[in-house]
Order: sequence, then structure tokens, then C-alpha cells
Amino acid sequence: MDGAPPPASPAGLSAYVVVSQLLGLTLLAATGAWLGRYRGGVAWHSLLQFNVHPLCMVLGMVFLQGDALLVYRVFRHEAKRSTKALHALLHGLALVVALVGIVAVFESHRTKGIPDMYSLHSWCGMAAFVLYLLQWLLGFGFFLLPGASFSLRSRYKPQHVFFGIALFALSIAACLLGITEMLLFNIRDSYSQFVPEGVLANTLGVLLVTFGLVVGYVLTRDDWKRPPLAEELALSMDFKTLTEGESPGGGSQ
Amino acid sequence: MDGAPPPASPAGLSAYVVVSQLLGLTLLAATGAWLGRYRGGVAWHSLLQFNVHPLCMVLGMVFLQGDALLVYRVFRHEAKRSTKALHALLHGLALVVALVGIVAVFESHRTKGIPDMYSLHSWCGMAAFVLYLLQWLLGFGFFLLPGASFSLRSRYKPQHVFFGIALFALSIAACLLGITEMLLFNIRDSYSQFVPEGVLANTLGVLLVTFGLVVGYVLTRDDWKRPPLAEELALSMDFKTLTEGESPGGGSQ
Repeated sequence: MDGAPPPASPAGLSAYVVVSQLLGLTLLAATGAWLGRYRGGVAWHSLLQFNVHPLCMVLGMVFLQGDALLVYRVFRHEAKRSTKALHALLHGLALVVALVGIVAVFESHRTKGIPDMYSLHSWCGMAAFVLYLLQWLLGFGFFLLPGASFSLRSRYKPQHVFFGIALFALSIAACLLGITEMLLFNIRDSYSQFVPEGVLANTLGVLLVTFGLVVGYVLTRDDWKRPPLAEELALSMDFKTLTEGESPGGGSQ
Repeated sequence: MDGAPPPASPAGLSAYVVVSQLLGLTLLAATGAWLGRYRGGVAWHSLLQFNVHPLCMVLGMVFLQGDALLVYRVFRHEAKRSTKALHALLHGLALVVALVGIVAVFESHRTKGIPDMYSLHSWCGMAAFVLYLLQWLLGFGFFLLPGASFSLRSRYKPQHVFFGIALFALSIAACLLGITEMLLFNIRDSYSQFVPEGVLANTLGVLLVTFGLVVGYVLTRDDWKRPPLAEELALSMDFKTLTEGESPGGGSQ
């Protein structure tokens, strides 16, 4: 209680972040339990290759994407450049993991002679992945490369934030569709008898929605937004006054 | 171009609202086309009773719910009390239409001897409906009944807004799950051959997501939020100064 305390996080934020991480780990465990106990496990060079797909999509497009979105709330007192780099790095990692999951399902379809991209799940999932990649490239170009002006960055930022959250929601919806497809292909006749596999997979769906709600709440709560550090505020005022509409050169905001 | 113009809406807002309404009507038409052309049409006292369900859920939980959310953006210069009443009325209508759709599926299940509430679609859909009803009751209690204090209303409002948008997203996700279920129950073997029914239903799914994105964008764009009218601003300052933490009596904010 004595001495100068470090800058405090807003009341409640830490609790929500902890809950989000517990939910994230639980939904990874639930995915693993479903695939391990009822679907024969996961392996690349085998008929189990398909199972790499749900595992990678939940890990990449939900858990890692969600955590990348939370970076600005969790590391609120770090330098903006480090936080931004971590945000880009986690989203990049999510994209790589998701790409592995997509390759797995295409290869598995080829092995089994199943057509690709006919279902609503595949349409929504592929749209989510392609737009997520585009969002990453745009974010990198606008916020990490030195070329974009302060005013351009300011105008793009609200779009980046809106589409970031919207694509996270679409990714979760695509996962729910994938769960429903898997259940109706594998346990169509016993699903309505509330067999354990169906209940477990439904519970995974509920966990995905809950994770999305908690992350979405943390992201959109006004008083939990990252406050600009004193030096950023001064710097941005300088840029705004001196270089309105021009590039801040090699600096980054 | 001459004479005092009426208060203008922000540039672009009207265009987005028009697009949202065109999308809404298109997705209703697509639902009707799917049910009419491929599923035998819609009727209450027959084996077609099930088809009332998708029609009512798309109309109630998506189109009407979306329009109810847009009310504060569209009627931005009307008195707040009228706008609030319309917001509550449209949400109420959405709930009634959705309830008809839920009764339809339960009665249809009973007729056909199909168990209820076993699928992820039913879990997500029922959660969306029950929470939406709760949200309506809480909104009515806090914002339309005179009991709640100004400060209580101010503290509840951000939660009301967040859950309003989140439940709209969950409602759309539940519709996507319902489309996938219907396709896998009805055209499981031909779905992968890109038959017209599958493509039409997938397109309906894409329209639902697009409607959600457009409505979500209009709702969350900061500079499109409803500005308080001059008299509301004066009134709220009075309430804030004079009755902080107490009820503003019979008045409504």
C-alpha cells in the first residue's frame, strides 16, 4: 500500500481478461476432447487429417484472433509500438495456424473424393479467412509501414476496429456451422437422443459464443479503451498541427 | 437549395440505411423463394407447418430486430420519447413474430415425433430468443417506466447497447445454423453437387451476414450516433445536477 503504485488497470478489466483466457483454454480442451474421444484423434498423414481442421480453426481463428484483439486492453501502459507489433504478430500467427487447418481439410477432401466449398460453412469460413488476411495486410500497410499519413491512419482506424470485431464474430459463426456439419455427418441418427458426443460438441459451441461475448465486451467498453501515453498525446498533437494530411515520415503512431 | 433546410443526416448514413433495407427485403424474398420453390410452401395446419419457422425467424429475429436497432439512427431529429417508443414497439413485434416461429417448430416436431432442443441450432436460437426477451423487459423497465433514476439509466445504457448488438449477431448465427441443418436434413446427398437449392440457401446465409454487417456498421459508427436535441441536453444537465442518483420522477429520458 506504500510507495508509488504502477499505473492501475480499470476495475473489472483484469477479471474479464482472466475469464476470457480460462474460456479460451476450456474451448481448446473441449475441441481436443471431442476429437480425441469421439473422432479418433488428430494426425496429418492419415484419414484423421480432417481433424486437424477444427483444432486449427478454433486455435487460430478464435483463440489467437481473440487474444490478438485483446492486446491493446491488456498491455495498456506499454509503448504503442511494442503493443502494435504484438497485435500484428498474434494475428499473423492466427493466420498461419488457420492456413494449416484449411490445407488439412482440402487435402482430406482430395483423399476422400469429397467436393470443396459447397457448404454455407465453407463459404462463411473462407470469407472470414480471406477478409482476415486482407485486414491484416491493410493493418500492416497503414499502421506498421511508415508511408501512411497521420490523417489517413486516423480515418482508417475506425474501419479497422469495426471489421476486426466483425470478422472475429464471423469466424466464431463459421466454427458453429462447422460443428453442426460434423455432427450431422457423423451422428445424424443419434444426435437427437442427446448422446454425449452431441452434448459435448454443443457445449463447445456455447463456449465459443461465450468467449466471443467476453472478448467483445472487453473490446467495446468505452472506459476500458487504451488511454494514450503522455508522450503519444504530445506527439500526435504535433503531427496533427504540423503535418495534417501529410506523412509523419518514418515515425509510427 | 434555398430556404432553411431541415436538419441534415450525416453524409453516407442514408445510403447505408437504404442498402440495409434492400438487403432486408432481399433476404425475406430469398427465404420465401427457398420455402416456396423447394420446400412446398408455408401453411399452419399441415406438414408444412415447419416452414413457418424459418420465415418467422428471419422476419422477426433478423429483419425486424435489425430495423428496431436502426431506429435511433434513422429518426435522429425526432423527439426522444417517440423514437424510444418505436424502438420498443419494433422489438416487441419482432419478439411476437419469433414466438410464432418457435411455436411452429415445436408443434411440427410433436406432429412428426421429433425430439426438441437437442441441436446446437436450437441451443443458440433459444438462448438468443430468451435473452432478447429479457433485454426487452429490462429496456422497458429502465427506459420506458418512470422508476429508474437518471444515473441508473446512464449506467445501464452501455450494457443495453452492447447486448443489443451481440444478441442481433447471435440471432443471425442461429439462422445460419438453421439453414445448415435444413440443408443437411433435406439435400444431404446432392448438396455437394452445388444443386440450386443449396446455392440459394447458401446465398441467403451470405445475405444474412451482409445485412448484419451493414446494420452493425451503421450502429457503431461514432459520428452517426444520434445527437441529443437542444432541449434534451438542457433537461439532462438539470437532472444530472439536481437529482444525481435519484429518480427523475415521472419524466422519461
